[in-house]
Parts: sequence; structure tokens; C-alpha cells
Amino acid sequence: MNNMNRRKFIQQTALAAGVLAVPHWLHSEEKINKVKVGLIGVGMRGQVHLANLFKRNDVDVVAFADPDQTYALPRVRKILEKNGKKGVLEFIQGDYDYQKMIETVPMDVVIISTPWEWHIPQGVEALNRKIVVGMEVSGGMNLKECWDIVNASEKNNTPVFAMENVCYRRDVMSIFNMVKKGMFGELLHLQGGYQHDLRGVKFNDGKDAYGDGVEFGDKGISESKWRTPHSLNRNGELYPTHGLGPVGTMIDLNRGNRLLRLSSVATKARGLHNYIIHHPKGGKDHPNAKISWKLGDVVTTSIQTENGETIILSHDTNLPRPYSLAFRVQGTQGLWMNDGNQIYLEGISPEERWEPSKKYLDEHDHPLWKKYEAEAQGSGHGGMDFYVLNALIECVKRKAEFPLDVYDLATWYAITPLSEKSVEKKGALVEIPDFTRGKWKTKKPIFGVGEEY
Amino acid sequence: MNNMNRRKFIQQTALAAGVLAVPHWLHSEEKINKVKVGLIGVGMRGQVHLANLFKRNDVDVVAFADPDQTYALPRVRKILEKNGKKGVLEFIQGDYDYQKMIETVPMDVVIISTPWEWHIPQGVEALNRKIVVGMEVSGGMNLKECWDIVNASEKNNTPVFAMENVCYRRDVMSIFNMVKKGMFGELLHLQGGYQHDLRGVKFNDGKDAYGDGVEFGDKGISESKWRTPHSLNRNGELYPTHGLGPVGTMIDLNRGNRLLRLSSVATKARGLHNYIIHHPKGGKDHPNAKISWKLGDVVTTSIQTENGETIILSHDTNLPRPYSLAFRVQGTQGLWMNDGNQIYLEGISPEERWEPSKKYLDEHDHPLWKKYEAEAQGSGHGGMDFYVLNALIECVKRKAEFPLDVYDLATWYAITPLSEKSVEKKGALVEIPDFTRGKWKTKKPIFGVGEEY
Repeated sequence: MNNMNRRKFIQQTALAAGVLAVPHWLHSEEKINKVKVGLIGVGMRGQVHLANLFKRNDVDVVAFADPDQTYALPRVRKILEKNGKKGVLEFIQGDYDYQKMIETVPMDVVIISTPWEWHIPQGVEALNRKIVVGMEVSGGMNLKECWDIVNASEKNNTPVFAMENVCYRRDVMSIFNMVKKGMFGELLHLQGGYQHDLRGVKFNDGKDAYGDGVEFGDKGISESKWRTPHSLNRNGELYPTHGLGPVGTMIDLNRGNRLLRLSSVATKARGLHNYIIHHPKGGKDHPNAKISWKLGDVVTTSIQTENGETIILSHDTNLPRPYSLAFRVQGTQGLWMNDGNQIYLEGISPEERWEPSKKYLDEHDHPLWKKYEAEAQGSGHGGMDFYVLNALIECVKRKAEFPLDVYDLATWYAITPLSEKSVEKKGALVEIPDFTRGKWKTKKPIFGVGEEY
Repeated sequence: MNNMNRRKFIQQTALAAGVLAVPHWLHSEEKINKVKVGLIGVGMRGQVHLANLFKRNDVDVVAFADPDQTYALPRVRKILEKNGKKGVLEFIQGDYDYQKMIETVPMDVVIISTPWEWHIPQGVEALNRKIVVGMEVSGGMNLKECWDIVNASEKNNTPVFAMENVCYRRDVMSIFNMVKKGMFGELLHLQGGYQHDLRGVKFNDGKDAYGDGVEFGDKGISESKWRTPHSLNRNGELYPTHGLGPVGTMIDLNRGNRLLRLSSVATKARGLHNYIIHHPKGGKDHPNAKISWKLGDVVTTSIQTENGETIILSHDTNLPRPYSLAFRVQGTQGLWMNDGNQIYLEGISPEERWEPSKKYLDEHDHPLWKKYEAEAQGSGHGGMDFYVLNALIECVKRKAEFPLDVYDLATWYAITPLSEKSVEKKGALVEIPDFTRGKWKTKKPIFGVGEEY
């Protein structure tokens, strides 16, 4: 398909799907060979994206914005220097200097990797300037901002890519592949979550991001500065996307299916307090030992879907435990469990016996992983960081629809404020809005379909 | 302690705990050396108990009642014959002949292993005749009957033993042991369930209990006769005790803790229909292919406790899958997962790495398992059937309080009707009654404490 035809095709598909407004950049005659990228937020996460962007020859990093001159800036400059990049503009004069960047520097895409509360406001501002947004993951601050990003994207005909890297995890993509081949039958029940002992991230010594200590907020640095206050003031599924994103692609979320309602329950909060009082730099007399933490140590969220599946999410970041995203993918013909890495497929596995899943994961390795294995190596998080960036850039170059879009982002983000509301009401049911406003009925699944991104 | 002193001790403890009514049989001067046992229901489950009872020399099986003369009776007679038992009275004249048995045959204990809907009515009638009840597990039919059994037990000062064998499973008791030693710290989150592919049990050929086929109800036999209609007419956590019983002992359920409320969600129902249409003796034209099944294939129940733990139960009996009760026991210092058989203990396990749990299970083998390993062998379900019967008989001989009592039974059973109500309301919160009427505040945990039962 040549470019003209592709454009027509996309327009027609969009029209057929009831999407009347086509993103403005799809109309552009200009072929993008080199994507101009700016970054808002170049802390630990943004730096990974920066380094990966420099590995690509179809990207021009034009500018970044970050107010942190003491910790982030020297590290970023080192990355620039190491890659021989001199022309990258810096916007480092305070929290709002990013506004000057998106106002003055021409760019196709901005990648936002800032503290959670900044995500949506910054995304909306970029969209209002017709800049495509690559949005890092988190949970939403409130329901309104989830609508804000949808409305801004629609109003400006400018798309958002939801940068959930776990959707591209190798085992997850193998399972996705097997799901689409029908090997699990009709899907019924899915689990996922974020089970990660973040105590050493939520607290540090105020000098190094992963420096042993019990400080946070004003006295902390990096994530402990901005992430930990959420554990102090909020109780709910604070980080839903790593669990929900991948299972969403399997059940065609927002593309033939949608989330209907949820209920969240939280355990008591013990982990962070225990960490402080037992830490060599903490103790019972440390000022932080007096703090009452709001976030329950394990938060479980039950979600029901339009198509009759149930999804269980687990948020568990305050306790000693091995890392696990706790996936379970279960259909009428079998199930895969991430914990224990076990699989059972009726008629294939020995009767009623688990098999190690490795054999199947290898056999059904997704075409994208076969294709880009070498490029992905060393990109971060086991290679998946390559894929999420690759999809962003390749879609922009092709002016193609993002496989994880603003409706996915809004739906994922909404889980957080909705689960907070549910926990506050002791687990009461909460309705989940349809951010597509009915378009889920006609939109077709496109994640993981092609062999290019 | 001699008998007089023990009696006094038990009475005083009961009084101190606010329990004014002491079971009548604790007052008996008669020392029980040989426990007279009757059985209501000697189908597949009752036959296991029967065979195990005959292995004991402190039991006298006096009678049984069961209306099934074609399938159960010949098998039972074979067991009697094999064990050289001749004096055991038979009550086989219809569904209500058990009433004649408990009316006319003197017995200390009756073990009830009948279809679920009979459990509580039969239990209440036995209690009204001051016969101690050993009640097999199921879920309750409605909330009222859960109160009925509590009221009957209290009114008649006659106790009920809740025969949940999984509380005595070897790995579960090791974990229980570790919990009580404080190795998991303060408990926070627990999971359990009943994940068992019962398709070959819910359906048979009408001739053999495990005969391949797609018949049930009137055309079925054994469990397919009575169990399967529950899948047809009910949607909820139909079999809560295998999951909830064991985690209940770990969190001191009804003895310092109680369940507050639950929410249940169910997937669509596909498994049983698929089984029928794909079975060689079924097919799309089989009459049962037209049936619409009510029970969702996976039902997930979230429970909140007084002490701030959360419990997630999974009921999954219509799908192809390996057997798993899906236990997870998580506290401030680590967690155990049944699936994958993995454990992590802070400060003991290598940092953030799972360990196979076997080493810990062996090391913390419960004293009861060390003591009775030989006796337990071959008793059924990996040995645990010995323990549940042993606890019943030893408590009766000692006139001691049951470690799993009528309040546990009522609480467990209540999950079923409450979860049905919740599923019907799309997962709405439902309050769980306090069947102890406040006694949970003072009752002390006694399960797994001693070394005798």
C-alpha cells in the first residue's frame, strides 16, 4: 500500500468504525522519516527512554524539560555526552518550563515521564498544541482528568500512546499470541497486578535514588520524593496498568469489550511502618515512625467486563516479597499462571497436570520478538522498553493508529480513583465509565497484529 | 488432669469465655471409651468415613441410614463384610428413615455425609436428640439454616464438629504451624478456593459414579444426581470450606477475629455446556445441550475481616484445569503460595527470590502429622481424612471442645447464600452475620494446639 492509499484506507476504516474525527497528522502529506521527540521528565524512567531513543536513527531528540537540576540533570547530560548529542535543548527552569518547551520547540511527539500528578495536565497541554503524546503509565489522580485527556485528544485530533511496556513482555506476548490463536478457548478469568517490594524505592537516604534509608517527600530523592506521598494519602489500586494493560489486550478492551464495574478491598497498612522501625537508619524514635500510612498493604480489585470475563488485580508494594505481576489467563480450554510459570491446555497437557510453560512460550514467541530480539536486548525491563518506544515511533512515522490509545489510558488510569472510592466505601461497587462513548462496539483490535510494531 | 478436674476446668473456661451453656455431655459422669457412631449418608464420602471408623478400636459403628439401595448399599455391605461387622443396623427405607435411626438407636455421634440440602435439617434433628453431629462440608442453602444449626446446638447444649479435612492437610498444617510461630509476621492477605475440574463428577453415564457420560439429575448417579443441579440453579461460591476453613484457622476465625462482609463476582458460564457438546456421548443434539447453566465458571469472592485481613476465594469447577486449592498466606514477613509451591521469608530466603517450600514444610511439619503419620496413611485425600475423624472421636472421648465448631460451620456455610446474593446484585457488598453473637471476642483459638487431635 502506498502512502496515499494507506491514508485513504485509514480514513475509511476510521469512518467505518464510526470515528468521524481523524487525527490531524493523518492528513499531513509530509512523510515523517525522522520523528522529532521531546521529553517532559527525565528522571530514572525518562533517562531509559532517552538512551533508547538515541539507539534509533529515525528519531531526533530535540529537547527535554525537567526541573531537577541536582539529581536528574547531571545524569541526563552524561547520557547526551556519551551519545555525542549536543543540540538537545534544555528546559530546566522550574516545574513549568516544559510549557515553554512545547510552545517554542517544534516536535512531533512528547514523551511524558513525570511524577504521576503531572501526567494528564502536561498531556492535555501538549495535545492542545497538536503534539502527539507518549504517556508513561501510572494511575489517575481523579476521574475528571481521565476524561480530560480523552476530550483533549478528540478535540485536537491528536492521539495519545499509552506506554505500558508490560504489554510487550516476551512471555506476555507469547500468551497473547496463544490467546489469539484460540489455544485457551474463550477467555473467562484473568488476573494481574503489581506485586513489587517497593520499600527500597519509597524510601531512601535523600542522596541516592536507591540509597538505603527511611526518608521520603521533602527529605527524599527521586521516586521517594513524589511516589511515597501517594502511599501516605491514598488507599486503592495505585498502579493498575502493568496488570490491566496486558490482560486488556487479550480480552480486546475498548475494541469489542469494555470494563463495567469494580470493587476494591484493602488490608490494613503495616509494611511501611514496619520497614521504618526496623531499618538501621530508622527505628522507633525516627520521626517517620509516627506516620500513619493510608495505603493498605494488599489491595485487591475485582473487575467485571461487558463480555462476561472477570479480572482480579492485586496491588502489593509495601511488603517483603519476590517481584510478580501475578498473571493468570484462563479460558474454556486451559490456563496459564505466571506464579510458578505453569500452564495447562486441555487435550495437549497430560490430564489435570501442570506443565512448565517455557516450551509453549518459546514455541509461540510473538513475531515481534522474533524480529527485534537483538534490538530489544539491553533496552530495559528485559527488552520490553524497546517495544513500547518502537510502537510509538513506528506509528508516528506511518501515521498509523496506536495499538494502545487514549481510551486505554483513560480506562486504565480510572481504575485508581474508582478503586479509592470503592475502598473508602468498604468495597462497594463502582461503575467504570465508557471513555470511548460507545466506540468500543465497532473499534477493531490492533495490538500485536502486525509484524512491525 | 483427672476427669473431675477436666470437667471443672472446661466449665470454668467456658464460663470465663462468657459461654453460659455447657454442652450436656460434658456433664456426663460416664467416661466414653468406645464412641457409638451412626452415619447418615453412606455414598462415596460416607463410605470413606465408614472404612476409617473401622480402623479404630475406640469406635462402635452402630447404624447407618441411606435411601440409595441400588448404588450405595451393595458397596457399604461389602465394606461391612470385609471388616467382619455384622451388628450394624441399616435404615434404608426412603429419604426419612434416618429419623427412625436417630430416634431408636442410642448413639453418641452421628456423621452426616448426605447431599448438601440435607445437611442442616438432619443436623438440627440430631441435635434435638442430643446427638453430637460430625458434619461434612458444603455450602449452605440459605442464611436461615446457618442460624438454625447454631440455635439447635446452643439450645440443646450439644456440639457440632465441622469436618473440613483440608484444615488437616499436611502442607496446610505446616504453614499453620509457621503462622503460629510468627514466621510470616502479622497476617494480611489470604487466598484459597476450590479449583477442581468436576466435569467428570457432575456428569456420568448413570451407571457408574465416575462413568464417562453427560447425564445428571434423574438420569445421573452419585454426585451427578444431586450436586449438578446446584450448578444449574445457583451462581455463587458453592463450596467455600476447603479454601476458607484452613485460612480461617490461621487468622483465628471466630476466636479473636470474624468475617465482616463479602463481594462475589462470576464469569459467564461456558464450561459445562462445552463439556456436553464435545463429549462423545453428548453432542449438539443431546437434550442436555439445550440447558442454560447458571453457575459462572469462575466465581471470585473477596472477604474482609474484623482484624483487617482480606481473603480471596476462588470457585472454579467447570473448566479443564489441574486441581488446586490456590492457597496464599501472606503476612508482614513473607508469603507462601500453593500454586508453584513457593515461599518467601524476609531475612531467611535469598533477597526477593522464591524458594521451593518443601524444605520449610518438612521442617515445620505439625506435631500431629509427626505423631499419626502411619495411621493417616491410606485414609483418603492424602491422609487428612484420618485427622478429621480423629479429632471428632478424640474430642467426644475427652468431652473436649471441638477445634472447628458450629460457629465455624455456620460462618463457612453462610458464604454460599451470601455470595449468591452478591453475584445476583453484580458483586454488591453483603454483610456476614456474627454467628457467635459476640463470643468471638473472648473465645480462644484451639485448633492445632494440642498434640493429640
